[in-house]
Amino acid sequence: MRNIKITIEYDGKNFAGWQVQPGKESIQGAIQKALKEITGEDIEIYSSGRTDAGVHALNQVANFKTNSTIDTSKFAYALNSKLPNSIVVKSAEEVSERFHARYNCKEKTYKYIINNNEFPSALDRYREFHMPLKLVFEAMKEATSYFVGEHDFAGFKSSGGAPKKTTVRTIKKATITKSKDNRITIELTGDGFLYNMVRIISGTIVDVGLGRINVKDIPKIIESKDRKKAGKTLPPHGLYLVNVKY
Amino acid sequence: MRNIKITIEYDGKNFAGWQVQPGKESIQGAIQKALKEITGEDIEIYSSGRTDAGVHALNQVANFKTNSTIDTSKFAYALNSKLPNSIVVKSAEEVSERFHARYNCKEKTYKYIINNNEFPSALDRYREFHMPLKLVFEAMKEATSYFVGEHDFAGFKSSGGAPKKTTVRTIKKATITKSKDNRITIELTGDGFLYNMVRIISGTIVDVGLGRINVKDIPKIIESKDRKKAGKTLPPHGLYLVNVKY
Repeated sequence: MRNIKITIEYDGKNFAGWQVQPGKESIQGAIQKALKEITGEDIEIYSSGRTDAGVHALNQVANFKTNSTIDTSKFAYALNSKLPNSIVVKSAEEVSERFHARYNCKEKTYKYIINNNEFPSALDRYREFHMPLKLVFEAMKEATSYFVGEHDFAGFKSSGGAPKKTTVRTIKKATITKSKDNRITIELTGDGFLYNMVRIISGTIVDVGLGRINVKDIPKIIESKDRKKAGKTLPPHGLYLVNVKY
Repeated sequence: MRNIKITIEYDGKNFAGWQVQPGKESIQGAIQKALKEITGEDIEIYSSGRTDAGVHALNQVANFKTNSTIDTSKFAYALNSKLPNSIVVKSAEEVSERFHARYNCKEKTYKYIINNNEFPSALDRYREFHMPLKLVFEAMKEATSYFVGEHDFAGFKSSGGAPKKTTVRTIKKATITKSKDNRITIELTGDGFLYNMVRIISGTIVDVGLGRINVKDIPKIIESKDRKKAGKTLPPHGLYLVNVKY
Protein backbone atom coordinates (compact mmCIF):
# COMPACT_ATOMS: atom_id res chain seq x y z
CA MET A 1 0.00 0.00 0.00
CA ARG A 2 1.11 3.56 -0.61
CA ASN A 3 1.77 5.77 2.41
CA ILE A 4 0.89 9.44 1.81
CA LYS A 5 2.08 12.27 4.04
CA ILE A 6 0.08 15.50 3.91
CA THR A 7 0.50 18.97 5.41
CA ILE A 8 -2.72 20.64 6.53
CA GLU A 9 -3.84 24.12 7.57
CA TYR A 10 -7.07 24.50 9.51
CA ASP A 11 -9.19 27.06 11.30
CA GLY A 12 -10.18 25.27 14.52
CA LYS A 13 -13.15 27.52 15.23
CA ASN A 14 -15.97 25.29 14.05
CA PHE A 15 -14.47 21.90 14.88
CA ALA A 16 -14.58 19.70 17.97
CA GLY A 17 -10.82 19.23 17.48
CA TRP A 18 -8.68 16.86 15.40
CA GLN A 19 -10.02 13.56 16.67
CA VAL A 20 -13.17 11.85 15.39
CA GLN A 21 -15.98 12.12 17.93
CA PRO A 22 -19.46 10.70 17.42
CA GLY A 23 -21.97 13.34 16.37
CA LYS A 24 -19.38 16.15 16.14
CA GLU A 25 -17.47 17.78 13.31
CA SER A 26 -13.77 16.92 13.59
CA ILE A 27 -10.84 17.64 11.32
CA GLN A 28 -9.87 13.97 11.15
CA GLY A 29 -13.47 13.06 10.33
CA ALA A 30 -13.71 15.67 7.57
CA ILE A 31 -10.47 14.47 5.94
CA GLN A 32 -11.47 10.78 6.21
CA LYS A 33 -14.81 11.63 4.59
CA ALA A 34 -13.01 13.43 1.74
CA LEU A 35 -10.63 10.46 1.33
CA LYS A 36 -13.59 8.10 1.11
CA GLU A 37 -15.13 10.28 -1.59
CA ILE A 38 -12.02 10.43 -3.75
CA THR A 39 -10.68 6.86 -3.22
CA GLY A 40 -13.77 4.85 -2.29
CA GLU A 41 -11.74 3.42 0.62
CA ASP A 42 -12.37 3.63 4.37
CA ILE A 43 -9.09 5.21 5.39
CA GLU A 44 -7.83 6.10 8.83
CA ILE A 45 -5.57 9.12 8.99
CA TYR A 46 -2.89 9.67 11.68
CA SER A 47 -1.75 13.16 12.63
CA SER A 48 1.34 14.29 14.54
CA GLY A 49 -1.01 14.72 17.49
CA ARG A 50 -4.55 15.68 18.40
CA THR A 51 -5.45 19.33 18.65
CA ASP A 52 -8.32 20.42 20.88
CA ALA A 53 -11.56 22.12 19.83
CA GLY A 54 -10.81 25.67 18.69
CA VAL A 55 -7.05 25.16 18.21
CA HIS A 56 -5.68 26.13 14.78
CA ALA A 57 -2.94 24.56 12.66
CA LEU A 58 -0.73 26.20 10.07
CA ASN A 59 1.16 23.02 9.15
CA GLN A 60 -0.27 19.94 10.83
CA VAL A 61 1.23 16.75 9.40
CA ALA A 62 -0.66 13.49 8.91
CA ASN A 63 -0.33 10.24 6.98
CA PHE A 64 -2.64 7.58 5.59
CA LYS A 65 -2.33 4.33 3.64
CA THR A 66 -4.17 3.85 0.39
CA ASN A 67 -4.44 1.53 -2.60
CA SER A 68 -5.60 4.43 -4.73
CA THR A 69 -3.64 5.15 -7.90
CA ILE A 70 -4.30 8.89 -7.77
CA ASP A 71 -1.13 10.74 -8.73
CA THR A 72 0.59 12.09 -5.60
CA SER A 73 0.71 15.60 -7.07
CA LYS A 74 -3.10 15.49 -7.43
CA PHE A 75 -3.96 14.41 -3.88
CA ALA A 76 -3.99 17.94 -2.42
CA TYR A 77 -6.22 19.26 -5.23
CA ALA A 78 -8.56 16.27 -4.99
CA LEU A 79 -8.90 16.52 -1.21
CA ASN A 80 -9.35 20.31 -1.23
CA SER A 81 -12.17 19.96 -3.75
CA LYS A 82 -14.07 17.87 -1.16
CA LEU A 83 -13.01 19.52 2.11
CA PRO A 84 -14.78 22.43 3.83
CA ASN A 85 -13.05 25.82 3.29
CA SER A 86 -11.72 25.82 6.84
CA ILE A 87 -9.42 22.85 6.10
CA VAL A 88 -6.78 23.07 3.35
CA VAL A 89 -4.28 20.38 2.35
CA LYS A 90 -1.15 22.35 1.43
CA SER A 91 0.96 19.50 0.09
CA ALA A 92 1.10 15.72 -0.33
CA GLU A 93 4.02 13.37 -0.87
CA GLU A 94 4.55 9.61 -0.96
CA VAL A 95 6.72 8.38 1.91
CA SER A 96 8.21 5.13 3.16
CA GLU A 97 5.66 2.58 4.31
CA ARG A 98 7.09 2.84 7.82
CA PHE A 99 6.53 6.57 8.24
CA HIS A 100 4.00 7.41 10.99
CA ALA A 101 3.09 11.08 11.61
CA ARG A 102 2.84 10.63 15.37
CA TYR A 103 5.51 8.05 16.24
CA ASN A 104 8.21 9.54 14.01
CA CYS A 105 7.65 13.16 15.08
CA LYS A 106 10.95 14.70 16.30
CA GLU A 107 9.99 18.29 16.97
CA LYS A 108 6.93 20.50 17.12
CA THR A 109 6.48 24.26 17.21
CA TYR A 110 3.40 25.94 18.67
CA LYS A 111 2.55 29.61 19.05
CA TYR A 112 0.09 31.33 21.34
CA ILE A 113 -1.21 34.82 20.48
CA ILE A 114 -2.40 37.32 23.12
CA ASN A 115 -4.20 40.53 22.11
CA ASN A 116 -3.30 43.08 24.79
CA ASN A 117 -5.48 45.92 23.46
CA GLU A 118 -8.37 47.42 25.41
CA PHE A 119 -10.98 45.78 23.16
CA PRO A 120 -11.03 42.41 21.37
CA SER A 121 -10.46 42.41 17.63
CA ALA A 122 -13.43 42.16 15.24
CA LEU A 123 -11.32 40.22 12.74
CA ASP A 124 -9.29 38.02 15.09
CA ARG A 125 -11.60 37.36 18.02
CA TYR A 126 -11.45 33.58 17.51
CA ARG A 127 -7.73 33.61 16.64
CA GLU A 128 -6.14 35.11 19.73
CA PHE A 129 -6.72 35.41 23.47
CA HIS A 130 -7.90 38.86 24.54
CA MET A 131 -6.27 40.17 27.72
CA PRO A 132 -7.03 43.87 28.27
CA LEU A 133 -5.15 44.23 31.57
CA LYS A 134 -1.64 45.69 31.68
CA LEU A 135 1.08 43.10 31.02
CA VAL A 136 4.72 43.74 31.95
CA PHE A 137 6.46 42.44 28.85
CA GLU A 138 10.01 42.36 30.26
CA ALA A 139 8.91 40.05 33.09
CA MET A 140 7.10 37.80 30.59
CA LYS A 141 10.29 37.63 28.53
CA GLU A 142 12.32 36.48 31.52
CA ALA A 143 9.60 33.96 32.45
CA THR A 144 9.64 32.51 28.93
CA SER A 145 13.39 31.87 29.10
CA TYR A 146 13.04 29.61 32.18
CA PHE A 147 11.06 27.03 30.22
CA VAL A 148 13.92 26.25 27.83
CA GLY A 149 15.71 22.93 28.43
CA GLU A 150 14.80 19.47 29.70
CA HIS A 151 12.27 19.58 32.53
CA ASP A 152 9.68 17.36 34.11
CA PHE A 153 6.56 19.26 33.07
CA ALA A 154 4.17 17.24 35.27
CA GLY A 155 2.80 20.52 36.69
CA PHE A 156 2.06 21.87 33.19
CA LYS A 157 -0.33 19.17 32.07
CA SER A 158 -4.10 18.81 32.30
CA SER A 159 -5.63 15.52 33.27
CA GLY A 160 -7.08 13.66 30.31
CA GLY A 161 -5.45 13.39 26.91
CA ALA A 162 -3.53 10.38 25.65
CA PRO A 163 -1.52 8.53 28.36
CA LYS A 164 2.23 9.22 28.21
CA LYS A 165 5.14 7.20 29.59
CA THR A 166 6.95 10.20 31.01
CA THR A 167 6.26 13.86 31.70
CA VAL A 168 9.84 14.90 30.91
CA ARG A 169 10.05 17.05 27.78
CA THR A 170 12.74 19.25 26.24
CA ILE A 171 11.88 22.75 25.07
CA LYS A 172 14.55 23.59 22.51
CA LYS A 173 13.50 27.15 21.86
CA ALA A 174 11.12 29.62 23.51
CA THR A 175 10.56 33.14 22.21
CA ILE A 176 8.16 35.92 23.03
CA THR A 177 7.60 38.96 20.84
CA LYS A 178 5.36 42.02 20.98
CA SER A 179 4.09 43.70 17.82
CA LYS A 180 3.24 47.36 17.25
CA ASP A 181 -0.46 46.52 17.44
CA ASN A 182 -0.07 45.02 20.92
CA ARG A 183 -0.08 41.35 20.06
CA ILE A 184 2.17 39.22 22.24
CA THR A 185 3.21 35.92 20.65
CA ILE A 186 4.79 33.08 22.62
CA GLU A 187 6.45 30.46 20.41
CA LEU A 188 7.69 27.14 21.78
CA THR A 189 9.66 24.44 19.98
CA GLY A 190 10.13 21.10 21.68
CA ASP A 191 10.48 17.37 21.24
CA GLY A 192 6.89 16.96 22.38
CA PHE A 193 4.22 18.58 24.51
CA LEU A 194 1.93 17.19 27.21
CA TYR A 195 -1.84 17.71 27.17
CA ASN A 196 -2.55 21.49 27.32
CA MET A 197 1.12 22.15 28.10
CA VAL A 198 1.50 25.15 25.74
CA ARG A 199 -1.72 26.72 27.03
CA ILE A 200 -0.64 26.27 30.67
CA ILE A 201 2.90 27.61 30.05
CA SER A 202 1.34 30.60 28.23
CA GLY A 203 -1.10 31.12 31.10
CA THR A 204 1.79 31.07 33.57
CA ILE A 205 3.72 33.63 31.48
CA VAL A 206 0.59 35.84 31.37
CA ASP A 207 0.24 35.53 35.18
CA VAL A 208 3.83 36.78 35.45
CA GLY A 209 2.94 39.71 33.17
CA LEU A 210 -0.03 40.51 35.40
CA GLY A 211 2.12 40.35 38.57
CA ARG A 212 0.16 37.37 39.93
CA ILE A 213 3.26 35.17 39.79
CA ASN A 214 6.75 36.45 40.65
CA VAL A 215 9.00 35.69 37.68
CA LYS A 216 11.80 34.50 39.98
CA ASP A 217 9.47 31.71 41.21
CA ILE A 218 9.15 30.09 37.79
CA PRO A 219 12.04 27.59 38.25
CA LYS A 220 10.55 26.52 41.62
CA ILE A 221 7.08 26.20 40.09
CA ILE A 222 8.47 23.92 37.35
CA GLU A 223 10.36 21.84 39.94
CA SER A 224 7.27 21.52 42.17
CA LYS A 225 5.47 19.45 39.46
CA ASP A 226 2.30 20.88 41.03
CA ARG A 227 -0.41 21.89 38.54
CA LYS A 228 -1.94 24.21 41.17
CA LYS A 229 1.22 26.35 41.34
CA ALA A 230 1.28 27.03 37.57
CA GLY A 231 -0.98 29.57 35.84
CA LYS A 232 -4.36 29.16 34.17
CA THR A 233 -4.92 27.09 31.04
CA LEU A 234 -5.49 29.78 28.42
CA PRO A 235 -8.38 29.26 25.97
CA PRO A 236 -7.78 27.14 22.85
CA HIS A 237 -8.49 29.79 20.19
CA GLY A 238 -5.15 31.60 20.75
CA LEU A 239 -3.15 28.43 19.99
CA TYR A 240 -1.60 27.42 16.65
CA LEU A 241 0.35 24.30 15.70
CA VAL A 242 2.99 25.98 13.53
CA ASN A 243 5.28 23.18 12.34
CA VAL A 244 6.17 19.52 12.79
CA LYS A 245 9.59 18.09 12.03
CA TYR A 246 10.65 14.49 11.30
CA MET B 1 -26.12 68.22 20.75
CA ARG B 2 -22.92 66.31 21.36
CA ASN B 3 -20.93 65.09 18.37
CA ILE B 4 -19.14 61.76 18.97
CA LYS B 5 -16.34 60.44 16.76
CA ILE B 6 -15.68 56.69 16.88
CA THR B 7 -13.03 54.39 15.41
CA ILE B 8 -14.33 51.00 14.27
CA GLU B 9 -12.84 47.65 13.24
CA TYR B 10 -14.99 45.22 11.27
CA ASP B 11 -14.84 41.91 9.49
CA GLY B 12 -16.74 42.59 6.26
CA LYS B 13 -17.45 38.92 5.54
CA ASN B 14 -21.05 38.71 6.70
CA PHE B 15 -22.19 42.24 5.87
CA ALA B 16 -23.69 43.82 2.76
CA GLY B 17 -21.20 46.67 3.27
CA TRP B 18 -21.21 49.85 5.34
CA GLN B 19 -24.41 51.43 4.06
CA VAL B 20 -27.90 50.62 5.30
CA GLN B 21 -29.79 48.55 2.74
CA PRO B 22 -33.34 47.29 3.24
CA GLY B 23 -33.46 43.64 4.31
CA LYS B 24 -29.68 43.28 4.55
CA GLU B 25 -27.18 43.32 7.41
CA SER B 26 -25.00 46.42 7.13
CA ILE B 27 -22.34 47.83 9.43
CA GLN B 28 -24.06 51.22 9.58
CA GLY B 29 -27.34 49.49 10.38
CA ALA B 30 -25.81 47.38 13.16
CA ILE B 31 -24.22 50.44 14.81
CA GLN B 32 -27.40 52.52 14.51
CA LYS B 33 -29.34 49.67 16.11
CA ALA B 34 -26.82 49.52 18.97
CA LEU B 35 -27.02 53.33 19.39
CA LYS B 36 -30.82 53.12 19.58
CA GLU B 37 -30.54 50.45 22.28
CA ILE B 38 -28.13 52.43 24.44
CA THR B 39 -29.51 55.98 23.92
CA GLY B 40 -33.14 55.42 22.96
CA GLU B 41 -32.56 57.84 20.06
CA ASP B 42 -32.88 57.27 16.31
CA ILE B 43 -29.36 58.28 15.33
CA GLU B 44 -27.80 58.47 11.88
CA ILE B 45 -24.10 57.70 11.75
CA TYR B 46 -21.72 59.08 9.08
CA SER B 47 -18.53 57.23 8.15
CA SER B 48 -15.46 58.45 6.25
CA GLY B 49 -16.91 56.57 3.29
CA ARG B 50 -18.90 53.49 2.37
CA THR B 51 -17.15 50.17 2.14
CA ASP B 52 -18.54 47.44 -0.12
CA ALA B 53 -19.84 44.02 0.92
CA GLY B 54 -16.92 41.86 2.09
CA VAL B 55 -14.47 44.75 2.58
CA HIS B 56 -12.82 44.95 6.03
CA ALA B 57 -11.83 47.93 8.15
CA LEU B 58 -9.11 48.17 10.78
CA ASN B 59 -9.84 51.80 11.69
CA GLN B 60 -12.93 53.16 9.98
CA VAL B 61 -13.95 56.53 11.42
CA ALA B 62 -17.54 57.71 11.88
CA ASN B 63 -19.46 60.35 13.80
CA PHE B 64 -22.95 60.81 15.17
CA LYS B 65 -24.93 63.43 17.11
CA THR B 66 -26.66 62.56 20.34
CA ASN B 67 -28.42 64.11 23.31
CA SER B 68 -27.38 61.17 25.45
CA THR B 69 -25.46 61.94 28.63
CA ILE B 70 -23.45 58.69 28.53
CA ASP B 71 -19.86 59.45 29.52
CA THR B 72 -17.65 59.58 26.39
CA SER B 73 -15.23 57.05 27.89
CA LYS B 74 -18.13 54.60 28.23
CA PHE B 75 -19.47 54.82 24.65
CA ALA B 76 -17.13 52.17 23.21
CA TYR B 77 -17.94 49.68 26.00
CA ALA B 78 -21.67 50.36 25.74
CA LEU B 79 -21.73 49.95 21.95
CA ASN B 80 -19.54 46.82 21.99
CA SER B 81 -21.90 45.19 24.48
CA LYS B 82 -24.69 45.49 21.88
CA LEU B 83 -22.77 44.97 18.62
CA PRO B 84 -22.15 41.62 16.91
CA ASN B 85 -18.61 40.24 17.46
CA SER B 86 -17.58 41.13 13.92
CA ILE B 87 -17.85 44.89 14.67
CA VAL B 88 -15.76 46.49 17.43
CA VAL B 89 -15.69 50.16 18.45
CA LYS B 90 -12.04 50.76 19.38
CA SER B 91 -12.39 54.30 20.73
CA ALA B 92 -14.80 57.21 21.13
CA GLU B 93 -14.19 60.92 21.68
CA GLU B 94 -16.31 64.05 21.76
CA VAL B 95 -15.49 66.43 18.89
CA SER B 96 -16.54 69.86 17.63
CA GLU B 97 -20.15 70.07 16.46
CA ARG B 98 -18.87 70.84 12.96
CA PHE B 99 -16.79 67.66 12.56
CA HIS B 100 -18.09 65.35 9.81
CA ALA B 101 -16.33 62.01 9.19
CA ARG B 102 -16.78 62.18 5.42
CA TYR B 103 -16.50 65.88 4.56
CA ASN B 104 -13.51 66.55 6.81
CA CYS B 105 -11.51 63.48 5.76
CA LYS B 106 -8.03 64.54 4.53
CA GLU B 107 -6.33 61.23 3.89
CA LYS B 108 -7.13 57.53 3.72
CA THR B 109 -4.98 54.42 3.66
CA TYR B 110 -6.15 51.13 2.19
CA LYS B 111 -4.33 47.82 1.83
CA TYR B 112 -4.99 44.91 -0.49
CA ILE B 113 -3.65 41.43 0.38
CA ILE B 114 -2.85 38.79 -2.25
CA ASN B 115 -2.06 35.19 -1.25
CA ASN B 116 0.33 33.89 -3.90
CA ASN B 117 0.58 30.32 -2.58
CA GLU B 118 -0.58 27.28 -4.55
CA PHE B 119 -3.63 26.78 -2.33
CA PRO B 120 -5.92 29.25 -0.55
CA SER B 121 -5.53 29.61 3.20
CA ALA B 122 -7.93 27.83 5.56
CA LEU B 123 -7.67 30.66 8.07
CA ASP B 124 -7.60 33.66 5.72
CA ARG B 125 -9.73 32.63 2.78
CA TYR B 126 -12.14 35.55 3.28
CA ARG B 127 -9.36 38.00 4.17
CA GLU B 128 -7.15 37.93 1.10
CA PHE B 129 -7.33 37.33 -2.64
CA HIS B 130 -5.93 33.98 -3.70
CA MET B 131 -3.80 34.08 -6.87
CA PRO B 132 -1.90 30.81 -7.39
CA LEU B 133 -0.23 31.80 -10.69
CA LYS B 134 3.36 33.04 -10.77
CA LEU B 135 3.65 36.79 -10.10
CA VAL B 136 6.80 38.73 -11.00
CA PHE B 137 7.20 40.86 -7.90
CA GLU B 138 9.81 43.28 -9.28
CA ALA B 139 7.48 44.27 -12.13
CA MET B 140 4.61 44.76 -9.65
CA LYS B 141 6.86 46.99 -7.58
CA GLU B 142 7.64 49.21 -10.56
CA ALA B 143 3.94 49.27 -11.52
CA THR B 144 2.97 50.38 -8.01
CA SER B 145 5.34 53.37 -8.17
CA TYR B 146 3.60 54.82 -11.26
CA PHE B 147 0.40 55.43 -9.31
CA VAL B 148 1.98 57.91 -6.91
CA GLY B 149 1.09 61.56 -7.51
CA GLU B 150 -1.87 63.56 -8.80
CA HIS B 151 -3.66 61.78 -11.65
CA ASP B 152 -7.05 61.71 -13.26
CA PHE B 153 -8.13 58.22 -12.21
CA ALA B 154 -11.23 58.13 -14.45
CA GLY B 155 -10.04 54.79 -15.86
CA PHE B 156 -9.74 53.29 -12.37
CA LYS B 157 -13.32 53.71 -11.27
CA SER B 158 -16.37 51.46 -11.51
CA SER B 159 -19.71 52.90 -12.50
CA GLY B 160 -22.04 53.29 -9.53
CA GLY B 161 -21.01 54.60 -6.14
CA ALA B 162 -21.62 58.11 -4.87
CA PRO B 163 -21.32 60.84 -7.58
CA LYS B 164 -18.05 62.83 -7.41
CA LYS B 165 -17.23 66.30 -8.80
CA THR B 166 -13.88 65.23 -10.20
CA THR B 167 -11.95 62.05 -10.89
CA VAL B 168 -8.60 63.67 -10.06
CA ARG B 169 -7.03 62.19 -6.92
CA THR B 170 -3.58 62.33 -5.35
CA ILE B 171 -1.90 59.15 -4.18
CA LYS B 172 0.63 60.31 -1.61
CA LYS B 173 2.23 56.96 -0.94
CA ALA B 174 2.11 53.52 -2.59
CA THR B 175 4.03 50.54 -1.28
CA ILE B 176 4.09 46.85 -2.11
CA THR B 177 5.68 44.21 0.10
CA LYS B 178 6.06 40.44 -0.04
CA SER B 179 6.20 38.34 3.13
CA LYS B 180 8.00 35.04 3.71
CA ASP B 181 4.68 33.21 3.49
CA ASN B 182 4.00 34.60 -0.02
CA ARG B 183 1.54 37.31 0.85
CA ILE B 184 1.82 40.41 -1.34
CA THR B 185 0.38 43.56 0.25
CA ILE B 186 -0.33 46.73 -1.73
CA GLU B 187 -0.85 49.79 0.49
CA LEU B 188 -2.12 53.08 -0.90
CA THR B 189 -2.47 56.40 0.91
CA GLY B 190 -4.33 59.21 -0.81
CA ASP B 191 -6.55 62.25 -0.38
CA GLY B 192 -9.49 60.15 -1.52
CA PHE B 193 -10.38 57.17 -3.67
CA LEU B 194 -13.00 56.67 -6.39
CA TYR B 195 -15.47 53.77 -6.39
CA ASN B 196 -13.48 50.49 -6.53
CA MET B 197 -10.28 52.45 -7.26
CA VAL B 198 -8.03 50.45 -4.90
CA ARG B 199 -9.36 47.15 -6.20
CA ILE B 200 -8.84 48.21 -9.85
CA ILE B 201 -5.32 49.55 -9.19
CA SER B 202 -4.50 46.29 -7.36
CA GLY B 203 -5.95 44.28 -10.26
CA THR B 204 -3.80 46.24 -12.69
CA ILE B 205 -0.68 45.61 -10.60
CA VAL B 206 -1.55 41.87 -10.49
CA ASP B 207 -1.97 41.87 -14.30
CA VAL B 208 1.54 43.35 -14.55
CA GLY B 209 2.81 40.57 -12.26
CA LEU B 210 1.15 37.99 -14.51
CA GLY B 211 2.66 39.53 -17.66
CA ARG B 212 -0.77 40.46 -19.04
CA ILE B 213 0.07 44.17 -18.91
CA ASN B 214 3.53 45.55 -19.71
CA VAL B 215 4.69 47.60 -16.75
CA LYS B 216 5.98 50.37 -19.04
CA ASP B 217 2.41 50.89 -20.29
CA ILE B 218 1.06 51.86 -16.86
CA PRO B 219 1.55 55.65 -17.32
CA LYS B 220 -0.24 55.47 -20.70
CA ILE B 221 -3.06 53.39 -19.20
CA ILE B 222 -3.55 56.01 -16.47
CA GLU B 223 -3.51 58.84 -19.05
CA SER B 224 -6.01 57.03 -21.29
CA LYS B 225 -8.75 57.37 -18.62
CA ASP B 226 -10.17 54.20 -20.18
CA ARG B 227 -11.53 51.63 -17.71
CA LYS B 228 -11.10 48.89 -20.33
CA LYS B 229 -7.32 49.40 -20.49
CA ALA B 230 -6.84 48.91 -16.72
CA GLY B 231 -6.86 45.51 -15.00
CA LYS B 232 -9.66 43.57 -13.35
CA THR B 233 -11.49 44.74 -10.23
CA LEU B 234 -10.13 42.33 -7.60
CA PRO B 235 -12.65 40.81 -5.17
CA PRO B 236 -13.66 42.78 -2.05
CA HIS B 237 -12.43 40.33 0.60
CA GLY B 238 -8.74 41.21 0.08
CA LEU B 239 -9.37 44.91 0.84
CA TYR B 240 -8.91 46.69 4.20
CA LEU B 241 -9.53 50.31 5.14
CA VAL B 242 -6.47 50.81 7.33
CA ASN B 243 -6.63 54.43 8.52
CA VAL B 244 -8.41 57.74 8.05
CA LYS B 245 -6.81 61.10 8.82
CA TYR B 246 -8.41 64.49 9.52
